[in-house]
Amino acid sequence: MPQIETVYSPSLIEHYSLGGKTVVVADVLRATTSMCVAFAHGITHIVPLVSIYETILYKPQNYITAGERNGQKVEGFEKGNSPFDFMDHDIKDKPLAITTTNGTQAIHASLAAANIYIGAFVNLQAVANKLLAEGQDTIILCAGWKNKFNLEDTLFAGALAGLLYNSGFEMNDDASIAAEALYHTAQNDLTAFIKKSAHAQRFERMGIDRDIDFCMQLDIYDFVPTYVDGKIVI
Amino acid sequence: MPQIETVYSPSLIEHYSLGGKTVVVADVLRATTSMCVAFAHGITHIVPLVSIYETILYKPQNYITAGERNGQKVEGFEKGNSPFDFMDHDIKDKPLAITTTNGTQAIHASLAAANIYIGAFVNLQAVANKLLAEGQDTIILCAGWKNKFNLEDTLFAGALAGLLYNSGFEMNDDASIAAEALYHTAQNDLTAFIKKSAHAQRFERMGIDRDIDFCMQLDIYDFVPTYVDGKIVI
Repeated sequence: MPQIETVYSPSLIEHYSLGGKTVVVADVLRATTSMCVAFAHGITHIVPLVSIYETILYKPQNYITAGERNGQKVEGFEKGNSPFDFMDHDIKDKPLAITTTNGTQAIHASLAAANIYIGAFVNLQAVANKLLAEGQDTIILCAGWKNKFNLEDTLFAGALAGLLYNSGFEMNDDASIAAEALYHTAQNDLTAFIKKSAHAQRFERMGIDRDIDFCMQLDIYDFVPTYVDGKIVI
Repeated sequence: MPQIETVYSPSLIEHYSLGGKTVVVADVLRATTSMCVAFAHGITHIVPLVSIYETILYKPQNYITAGERNGQKVEGFEKGNSPFDFMDHDIKDKPLAITTTNGTQAIHASLAAANIYIGAFVNLQAVANKLLAEGQDTIILCAGWKNKFNLEDTLFAGALAGLLYNSGFEMNDDASIAAEALYHTAQNDLTAFIKKSAHAQRFERMGIDRDIDFCMQLDIYDFVPTYVDGKIVI
């Protein structure tokens, strides 16, 4: 049976073998959630980038550009990293170039994998269905916060690992077992649990805690954004 | 108030500032437990080493030598890494040089800290009491398994973080919050929970699962081994 592994930080990925495996990248607050929102509002494809400089270069090519560092929108970009930034009609039928503190870095850390999928609570079941249909060994990569562990991506990993395990995937990996146990503890009030986290408290200080309520919604989208040859598409 | 942080792998420690802080190194299965056992049976001091080669050099100096890789005793050493190896009277009044897969590496990853303490379930309350008396910012470093997350060290971190938090330390760090929640879930049957882990299953295959029962005992020792100038002493 296919195996599940969970990795709590992009800087731990070097200890794992990615060849032939599927990686699900999760940056629940907010990059991977916002990418789903962007597709739901008509973005044609997304180019995820590591640096601000590279991302700016997409402006003259009629891309929508989005930049976030330390939770704040970067000056000179049209969009930040809030899901609400991608609900405008102005993005319809345009491509998006985006760089964020954690999520786009995590995608680049996964390039050795056979498949890279974008996951968040908003498309959790769709991601699980795709993984179950394909039956490949799967690594759930939590984007974390500046290479440190974070709660929200771990809870997503636990929710996804539980769905896969209950449908026959093997889960022998301590990080998946811990994430699944944590999700089991927190699931009855996920938002309250998340609001204990360091990241959520940063959001409250920035007055963007409505983003958390949005990002904690389960299964509002039924597609799985997929990274292929430098672009994320659905 | 002093802060608690938890780090799930030695390879994440580079993202933390250690200066002026106390690091508690935990390798519950088995290095830090076995170090406590060795002191309880009369070892004078312990030199923790990264490589097998360095450790062998201590033999002509009348050190007891211990070496473990991948859970197995390394040929040419008197002792492996089992707590039962250090219950012999032959170690009394002698020094010990030891290298292990994870624990001794984690100690070396902590050298920038102001204080380095050796923690395990067997001296949990003693470690907590010392940290509470000193009131320094504290990082709990889980040795993990080959730089990957493991359950047993995380549960120890959760137990310790809970004791500190309940006595006034601040806990704003997601890894500590998750570890504490996990310990809370598992504490009524810690050994059963641990036996789910990858490491415990490795132990069962090697026929050394009695080590797990030993290492899960709470508070059988009341001292805190401390690393000072290359040596661990009590």
